[in-house]
Amino acid sequence: MSELIKVVLTEDEMPRQWYNLNADFTRPMPPPVDINGKPIGPEALAPVFPMNLIEQEMCTDRWVDIPEEVLGIYKLWRPTPLYRARRLEAALGTPARIYYKNEGVSPAGSHKPNTAVPQAYYNKIFGIKRLTTETGAGQWGCALSFASQLMGLECKIFMVRISFDQKPFRKIMMRVWGGHCVASPSTETEVGRRILEADPDTPGSLGIAISEALEQAVQREDTRYALGSVLNHVMLHQTIIGLEAKRQFEKIGEYPDIVIGCAGGGSNFAGIAFPFLADKAAGRDLRVIGTEPAACPTLTRAPYVYDSGDVAMMTPLLPMHSLGHTFVPEPIHAGGLRYHGMAPMVSHALQEGLIEATAIEQLECYESAILWARTEGFIPAPETSHAIAQAIREAKQAKEEGKAKVIVMNWSGHGLMDLKGYEAYMDGKLTDYKLPEEAMLRSMLCLKDLPKPPASERR
Amino acid sequence: MSELIKVVLTEDEMPRQWYNLNADFTRPMPPPVDINGKPIGPEALAPVFPMNLIEQEMCTDRWVDIPEEVLGIYKLWRPTPLYRARRLEAALGTPARIYYKNEGVSPAGSHKPNTAVPQAYYNKIFGIKRLTTETGAGQWGCALSFASQLMGLECKIFMVRISFDQKPFRKIMMRVWGGHCVASPSTETEVGRRILEADPDTPGSLGIAISEALEQAVQREDTRYALGSVLNHVMLHQTIIGLEAKRQFEKIGEYPDIVIGCAGGGSNFAGIAFPFLADKAAGRDLRVIGTEPAACPTLTRAPYVYDSGDVAMMTPLLPMHSLGHTFVPEPIHAGGLRYHGMAPMVSHALQEGLIEATAIEQLECYESAILWARTEGFIPAPETSHAIAQAIREAKQAKEEGKAKVIVMNWSGHGLMDLKGYEAYMDGKLTDYKLPEEAMLRSMLCLKDLPKPPASERR
Repeated sequence: MSELIKVVLTEDEMPRQWYNLNADFTRPMPPPVDINGKPIGPEALAPVFPMNLIEQEMCTDRWVDIPEEVLGIYKLWRPTPLYRARRLEAALGTPARIYYKNEGVSPAGSHKPNTAVPQAYYNKIFGIKRLTTETGAGQWGCALSFASQLMGLECKIFMVRISFDQKPFRKIMMRVWGGHCVASPSTETEVGRRILEADPDTPGSLGIAISEALEQAVQREDTRYALGSVLNHVMLHQTIIGLEAKRQFEKIGEYPDIVIGCAGGGSNFAGIAFPFLADKAAGRDLRVIGTEPAACPTLTRAPYVYDSGDVAMMTPLLPMHSLGHTFVPEPIHAGGLRYHGMAPMVSHALQEGLIEATAIEQLECYESAILWARTEGFIPAPETSHAIAQAIREAKQAKEEGKAKVIVMNWSGHGLMDLKGYEAYMDGKLTDYKLPEEAMLRSMLCLKDLPKPPASERR
Repeated sequence: MSELIKVVLTEDEMPRQWYNLNADFTRPMPPPVDINGKPIGPEALAPVFPMNLIEQEMCTDRWVDIPEEVLGIYKLWRPTPLYRARRLEAALGTPARIYYKNEGVSPAGSHKPNTAVPQAYYNKIFGIKRLTTETGAGQWGCALSFASQLMGLECKIFMVRISFDQKPFRKIMMRVWGGHCVASPSTETEVGRRILEADPDTPGSLGIAISEALEQAVQREDTRYALGSVLNHVMLHQTIIGLEAKRQFEKIGEYPDIVIGCAGGGSNFAGIAFPFLADKAAGRDLRVIGTEPAACPTLTRAPYVYDSGDVAMMTPLLPMHSLGHTFVPEPIHAGGLRYHGMAPMVSHALQEGLIEATAIEQLECYESAILWARTEGFIPAPETSHAIAQAIREAKQAKEEGKAKVIVMNWSGHGLMDLKGYEAYMDGKLTDYKLPEEAMLRSMLCLKDLPKPPASERR
């Protein structure tokens, strides 16, 4: 057990640019469109985002410089270590070599600050004073509160009601960093009041919370909105994860056969996957797998459509795998993986045949998480446990095949704020749940009159 | 802001030996004694600890090899980064350079695994199957559960009742790692039942919980007891912190003028301080400061006496600064700093004039913690906030003097499991509390018939 466990980089070895997969897609992504199917221009997004981020959203340059001020804050926790999970390997008796990128070491405990910091930065230099956003499990709200505080911005967070009630500690974290968090739907917005009137006991959803945050953003000139996943610029910022991982693999003379990330909105998956997909697009043999909960199966079962990012349809229509913007997910514990749509770039990568997708139910995920904690030590977030479960499946497969495959996964965050889910699992109170076909068809009804993206070759 | 923020070491650069300050005291420490003042031999401790740890407890070698298996587990989170707190410096406008050793990156979130892992290891190779212990805030119980799991031992934890009720998540963490945690006083031991009979609503204390854990340890041949602080071998294991820090300072050509740690039982303070004290003992000009809560002022106000480590007086008498083993602290939020005594080695270092001590009340500590989170990002444990408060005092002093002093502190753990205290502080619900003289005199009554250590030159 005395062999290398972590590959570390110094701050000097940290990448100075993000990688943009849009430069390497064979067919370009379909553009965002309005309700009539007409491509929208940058000005349509201007009330919501600062123009410098809109430009980044539409950018197709392969490399984008990371601003010095962002690098300075990244260094509070980056470069993150690339670990080899030797104890898990031993417990599984697998010949596979399992690596993981530990994004749980950030102040907020997940990969989310990788984009929160540049988003706060670009808003600041554009002259914005206040950010609004939504949060599900609370990871993103914490990350944006942290980033806003360090950039000197105000931050207002709409937190999905069920998480607001179940995760009181996340609220306190946001407050420590100066963020102001309210339960969504709230009485502070038109859309919130309307939904509360129709259903005062609604558990809320990310789609609703996004609508509320958007409504407040467009009302004030000094305010913009920040989204923690889905959008192109978010995927871009997260590529720091995979770029570091590639340098770390270079240091030890390895290269992965399989790259794994859990997929909710798609950002942590994109972060680890896209820099490796650049090699795959150039011909490298490589499997790249996004793993989602069976309760919210966007990549594995939802159609590739144009859909809105929020329930009030305030956003443009984006080309993505979507269960429909009216989808209200079951309250499974992996709150960060319950969004109705999948990032357009991740959806397009699936369309292009660059990635695979799997869906896993929660008992297998928790079982994997406990095995992880008891071998590797760190307690993973329920979201992260989906990536772990997939890595364990692949490691067992490698054992059957007798192949020393190299697996890398993104360990997207720790589970110290999610222990109630662990308790429920250990008490035998959780059950598996797979989204029923009828529920899926019902939630997709809202899609039927929307324009369609260009026909896919793949599905 | 693009200058170096973290100094990292590779696993190869991690120290291979712990440092023992007992080799460098001018006058040796007084020995542990029995109730009649007679020095005890190793055999007196044999029912409680395995003989290999007892030997380490009594060892005066300057350097002790770290076993390979322990190094292998250390590497899950060690070497830990040495940070420079540039943003805090800027916020204070101080010419001081403030460094901190981030021990919050361990799986359990604090420095405690540094000794939990070797303790579990030495018990395992001695043939022990089961460990018992006590825990206050829960940090130590988590660390020992984690270490026991990785070494294949069972682990039973008696958690001080008030923390057991206030910190439900710590229990779940222990359970994830396979530990079995009960509230203390419990009905599982003689001493627990006796105390519950006298006072069914007692909030418990570390002294009581230690008595319970000891009682269970001595009853079974396959069971021993593990203590998270106070003892010499615990101080020894923690020196990995300061040894790494010294190598990190070497790398950047710095050496501290001031070394700071918070002090409860003394172990995180010893961990950062002792390797630097080796240089001070050899003549180097250096201030080393232990900072404790004004609510539990062992170093700053308690006498240097022989006292027992637990309320039932099951341990030998140790030479230490102690408020008396019957001391029941006020429920301030820094649960890890509420022990009645101070580690004999730390107490002796104070007697020898090697260190200074300060006591700080909790509002200043929380104020410092919030400033920390809003500049440096990471949310500190309430215990750690005492070290931060002292570092801020020193940095302000350096500003007044116009001196570019180099300050290093031990950032002993994160506060993600302690957010209720932050909420209470931000809601204005906390007040300062300094142990009143009468309460101190009352708790010290239990000391009056005990033997006394050799007269101190200093007090």
